[in-house]
Amino acid sequence: MTRASGRRWSRHRERPLTETSATFNALFSPASVAVIGASDNPNKVGGRPIHYMRAFGYAGEVFPVNPAREVIQGYRAYPTLDAIGKTPDAVVIAVSGDATLEQVRQCGAAGVKAAVIMASGFAETGEAGRQRQQELVTVANASGMRVVGPNAQGTANFANGAVLNFSTMFMEVAPQDGPIAIISQSGAASVMPYALLRQAGYGVRYLVATGNDADLDACTMTAAVAADPYVRLILVYLESVSDPAQLAHAAQVARARGASIVAIKAGNSQRGAKAAASHTGALVGNDAAIDAFLARHGIWRARDIGELVRAVPLYLQQRQPGQGRTVVMSHSGAVGVMAADLAERHDLPLTELQPATLRELGGILPEFGTASNPLDMTAALLGKGDMFPRVLHALGADPQADMVMVGIPVAGPGYDVEALARDAAAFSADRAKPLVVSAPQQSVREVFERHGVPAFVTEADAIGALAQYAAHQRLAKGAPTPGWPDAKRLDGSGLQDEAHSLALLAEAGVPAVPHRLCDSVEAALAAFKALGGTPVVVKGCAADIPHKSEHGLVHLRLTDAASVARAAQDCLDTLQRLGVASPRVVVGAMVKGRHEFALGVSVDPLFGPLVMIGEGGTLLELRKDVVTLLAPFTAEDVKAACARLRLAPLFDGYRDIPALDLDALAASAVALGDWALRHRTALVSVDINPLMVMAAGQGVMAVDAVVELKGN
Amino acid sequence: MTRASGRRWSRHRERPLTETSATFNALFSPASVAVIGASDNPNKVGGRPIHYMRAFGYAGEVFPVNPAREVIQGYRAYPTLDAIGKTPDAVVIAVSGDATLEQVRQCGAAGVKAAVIMASGFAETGEAGRQRQQELVTVANASGMRVVGPNAQGTANFANGAVLNFSTMFMEVAPQDGPIAIISQSGAASVMPYALLRQAGYGVRYLVATGNDADLDACTMTAAVAADPYVRLILVYLESVSDPAQLAHAAQVARARGASIVAIKAGNSQRGAKAAASHTGALVGNDAAIDAFLARHGIWRARDIGELVRAVPLYLQQRQPGQGRTVVMSHSGAVGVMAADLAERHDLPLTELQPATLRELGGILPEFGTASNPLDMTAALLGKGDMFPRVLHALGADPQADMVMVGIPVAGPGYDVEALARDAAAFSADRAKPLVVSAPQQSVREVFERHGVPAFVTEADAIGALAQYAAHQRLAKGAPTPGWPDAKRLDGSGLQDEAHSLALLAEAGVPAVPHRLCDSVEAALAAFKALGGTPVVVKGCAADIPHKSEHGLVHLRLTDAASVARAAQDCLDTLQRLGVASPRVVVGAMVKGRHEFALGVSVDPLFGPLVMIGEGGTLLELRKDVVTLLAPFTAEDVKAACARLRLAPLFDGYRDIPALDLDALAASAVALGDWALRHRTALVSVDINPLMVMAAGQGVMAVDAVVELKGN
Repeated sequence: MTRASGRRWSRHRERPLTETSATFNALFSPASVAVIGASDNPNKVGGRPIHYMRAFGYAGEVFPVNPAREVIQGYRAYPTLDAIGKTPDAVVIAVSGDATLEQVRQCGAAGVKAAVIMASGFAETGEAGRQRQQELVTVANASGMRVVGPNAQGTANFANGAVLNFSTMFMEVAPQDGPIAIISQSGAASVMPYALLRQAGYGVRYLVATGNDADLDACTMTAAVAADPYVRLILVYLESVSDPAQLAHAAQVARARGASIVAIKAGNSQRGAKAAASHTGALVGNDAAIDAFLARHGIWRARDIGELVRAVPLYLQQRQPGQGRTVVMSHSGAVGVMAADLAERHDLPLTELQPATLRELGGILPEFGTASNPLDMTAALLGKGDMFPRVLHALGADPQADMVMVGIPVAGPGYDVEALARDAAAFSADRAKPLVVSAPQQSVREVFERHGVPAFVTEADAIGALAQYAAHQRLAKGAPTPGWPDAKRLDGSGLQDEAHSLALLAEAGVPAVPHRLCDSVEAALAAFKALGGTPVVVKGCAADIPHKSEHGLVHLRLTDAASVARAAQDCLDTLQRLGVASPRVVVGAMVKGRHEFALGVSVDPLFGPLVMIGEGGTLLELRKDVVTLLAPFTAEDVKAACARLRLAPLFDGYRDIPALDLDALAASAVALGDWALRHRTALVSVDINPLMVMAAGQGVMAVDAVVELKGN
Repeated sequence: MTRASGRRWSRHRERPLTETSATFNALFSPASVAVIGASDNPNKVGGRPIHYMRAFGYAGEVFPVNPAREVIQGYRAYPTLDAIGKTPDAVVIAVSGDATLEQVRQCGAAGVKAAVIMASGFAETGEAGRQRQQELVTVANASGMRVVGPNAQGTANFANGAVLNFSTMFMEVAPQDGPIAIISQSGAASVMPYALLRQAGYGVRYLVATGNDADLDACTMTAAVAADPYVRLILVYLESVSDPAQLAHAAQVARARGASIVAIKAGNSQRGAKAAASHTGALVGNDAAIDAFLARHGIWRARDIGELVRAVPLYLQQRQPGQGRTVVMSHSGAVGVMAADLAERHDLPLTELQPATLRELGGILPEFGTASNPLDMTAALLGKGDMFPRVLHALGADPQADMVMVGIPVAGPGYDVEALARDAAAFSADRAKPLVVSAPQQSVREVFERHGVPAFVTEADAIGALAQYAAHQRLAKGAPTPGWPDAKRLDGSGLQDEAHSLALLAEAGVPAVPHRLCDSVEAALAAFKALGGTPVVVKGCAADIPHKSEHGLVHLRLTDAASVARAAQDCLDTLQRLGVASPRVVVGAMVKGRHEFALGVSVDPLFGPLVMIGEGGTLLELRKDVVTLLAPFTAEDVKAACARLRLAPLFDGYRDIPALDLDALAASAVALGDWALRHRTALVSVDINPLMVMAAGQGVMAVDAVVELKGN
């Protein structure tokens, strides 16, 4: 069985958000399972599910289907599905790709509710395979059957032994039920976290590898396991977000009962930022859309398998991380120093202890100890048996001490590790605050783990896990996602010229610079006069030529009629030479803002409009000082995002530059996002650059813009 | 025993670079060791070294010194050092802080070569302790004795059992000799990597925790162990670089024989960037100086204990990583996708396989396998026994395949892990190329490790280790460090005004904008004329007022005499109002460069001048698009550093901006670095902002500058 590396098929599905629970019951709690293509050899694909169901205590009926045998792995075998005489709830189809369609047809006809299709040779092999795959799904769905796969390793529910899955991993690493679910498009990526978790002693209930995602995809399966109240953490591996609406639904179900989703979206390297027509598209890429989408739905994005599983013990304890303000305590100064470095790297705030706490600690800690965070308890930790619980007690009373990291760099004779672990566990349970330990000695970690205290090998892992857990819990507390408005049409197609682009944006609610569109030198002179004789800019205006300055089509700071006439003539001539049918120029007021920003939109086919805000000007794409927001969003969202810009201090005033009009910038961004959302099916992208931002109270003004609509 | 957290004392020592090997022989290979303050209890500080020397096979003589006992841990005890009747090579002084000085005096008088002082209560407690500490060292050195400590956990050589060290860790984690040395200012930070390495089966020869670094500091001890030809890797933990020259010497010794140094410099958070007078100082901070210093000397800077030990197996194998171009192979597409993401994150280049290699691979890989890097060998890896060695053979012939990562996300029945490991090990040994495996299953890693193949739990660790090893080996191949020229004086002190600053820089070799210094309106008008009537800028010029624009002291784009006169008068009035004794203005040509850069110097007291290059203008400190170089450096070094700027594409031409004069920028930076190095004892900082950079061939020009000299 093989999977095409990194290639998947994004389909925008129009299924209802909630699958019938009958389908999932059939897969995860079937009363009976047939295995078509069953093998007596437990090391073959068609043999492993049978072997696993027997070994892991599946109590339902198992029907091996294989015309060549009467008994398979001790079960009575049947020549065909029909020969069983009853309809199994679920079927594993483990025959070759060529034979799969006929089996799907038979299953559908028999009234089977759900099937796992293991054969490869479908969409991952190219267009012909994609068509064969579509046929499979059509045939199955026509009779009401849903399928996982093809090219799927399958599903498993270790709570009841319903293992419709052929991974060899379960031969090596014994399963155990637990409050974790793993959902993955890749078989390998499903069993890697499984192996790490099981080796660390954590139980896993569901393990699903969906393969080609032709019908019941990874997002839908995530929603399915999110509905199980026993599941507290869902780990997801995706190479494409095959069904954003289902994933959003899964997140909502999980969030509603305090469960968490951590997801890897792999394949982000070298992607997105290539070959996008708009600057915004080039800067933003598909990956930023995924980041924004996952964040909006309270899903933590892990960067690799290690990060996927690192904070698992914290998720399972479900203690409250508050604002994540952390106290680091150790009997080594070096641990404190390193932890402070790491906290800064991970954006984890260290607690500013209250004066009362400091006073209390001062009375407990020995002479050379440090009664400030990080707390250096020194080796005196050993001598005084009650110092550690007393310090914890003092911290427990401090409302700003949200989480605790205890570093035990070394222990040996004289260290009562058992007592330390017991006190740590009691504190964490009583105060309901997360507490973790970091210790390089396995013997030390084992004691803490036995007492239920999450234990990490290094300070880096401990701090990283705390930072992730606290940030994720904050993320998951975000506002619920508003729905999308009905999509509206827009006239026109392809790139719009500057004048029309500015007009569209003004309609959207983004103020444009005063300007006139002119088709002659005379009209340009009249415009110059109409604009009040202020300095003006004259620019060639043609939809086909979005990069005007590269063709000498921008004339700045014109202060007299002669210059305006010369510039207009020059632009009209150049446009004519470039083959533009009706050459025109824009004569605009020369606006000097306090700083040049850029505002843009890139409409992702799956996630909708992503709005980019950042420093503008010619060097936009080099400086890359931008933030992105998924529409719709509020002015507060914009302000929070803009606080992450390198240029953020400008909004409060910087040196001799007065505070900029962040309110106006936020209002324009919100208006643009709402407008883009309404017109998402017609719009490709928007580039506003520069958007002049004035001093506070004086607004913003779009000086140049290109809107691209679908079609051309 | 305690250590003050994070505080250490930087001293600029004037010792010879090479200590007499007699000192190190006395510490690491003593014929006899006395322990003053010896205890019969192996769990006390004065008992542990004796216990360890007996337990770990120390073959020399051990002399416990304790007037209260006749026998200690089976050794004959002596009431005083003199009573021994011979002079031990090394002494452990484990008495209290108050009693230490007298023992040091007696050791020195007796002719002891080296002592480890364990007592705390010295410089880490404040000024009085610092003075007691200084007295200790003075007394010891006066008689030719060198000391490690005070407040030191001590030294250990596990090759011969000479353990002058009281860590409890060796009670728990048994030592074993090996080609690794650990040198640390912190006791805890010395035993944390030790525990991780020993638990992973690696041998460690030296383990030294130097404490307060009063005499033989961590840098000096690093140089000492670097001289042992058996040592291939030195892991260092520092909170301050106590003696840069010794660390540089250590790096040179190690590098000369192919050994490597990996160092943590902790305590970098929230440091450096505060309270620096110059913009350059504020931007650069002390941490950048440390980065630059370590990089220059081929020392890899690890960010935490995990990173410190991660690539150990690669260092010990010492295979050649070439240019680090890596081939990723797996039987899972997902591993390839994730490894590609990780390689991009770690700046590790993936190999572009040669056409001949691809052809050969095409003949080996199954239908669904991917004959491009990452290589997806699919589960067919299992079926064909010789596929893996054939693929490796094809890669071995490709000159661009420098390193290999094999991902084994899952193995079980049907996987011949033994054969995979054997083939992988043979390939790596025969081709002398680094090869690592990544596998979540401990059982799989164990097989590879048994065959000598470095094995990692996750792809992230495997890719991270390869990236570090390859980048470090390149770093260590850098040019040898040139010596420093004699320091020269500079007249003046404190902040220099613009005119004098530009004059100093012109002398250094940085071209300045044409300008005149004028003390009256008449002189300003004459200067306007002399500059050819071009647009000029008029600026107030006073050393006390470096931020001119904030006081309205900058008048740009003046094109007529009346404006010049008005501006000059305005500046002179303002300066007078600000209390400047002799108000003057600079009249300078208004130069329009292609882009505004900044060039600066911050002289670090330990590491010398650090030169900063980056985007200039008012927003310099917000945009932070800067690189730093430790003087001296070459034009090639500047170009390599500038390639890391976000604005780097400007040097090749970007959109309608022509290529900038990188040669001139590099020449100015080199000249400034050399000048700053010559004047390092007189100079505090230089800020040149803007440095106008013209189109290629047209040079650079300093438009404004502030030089700060020592004193005021």
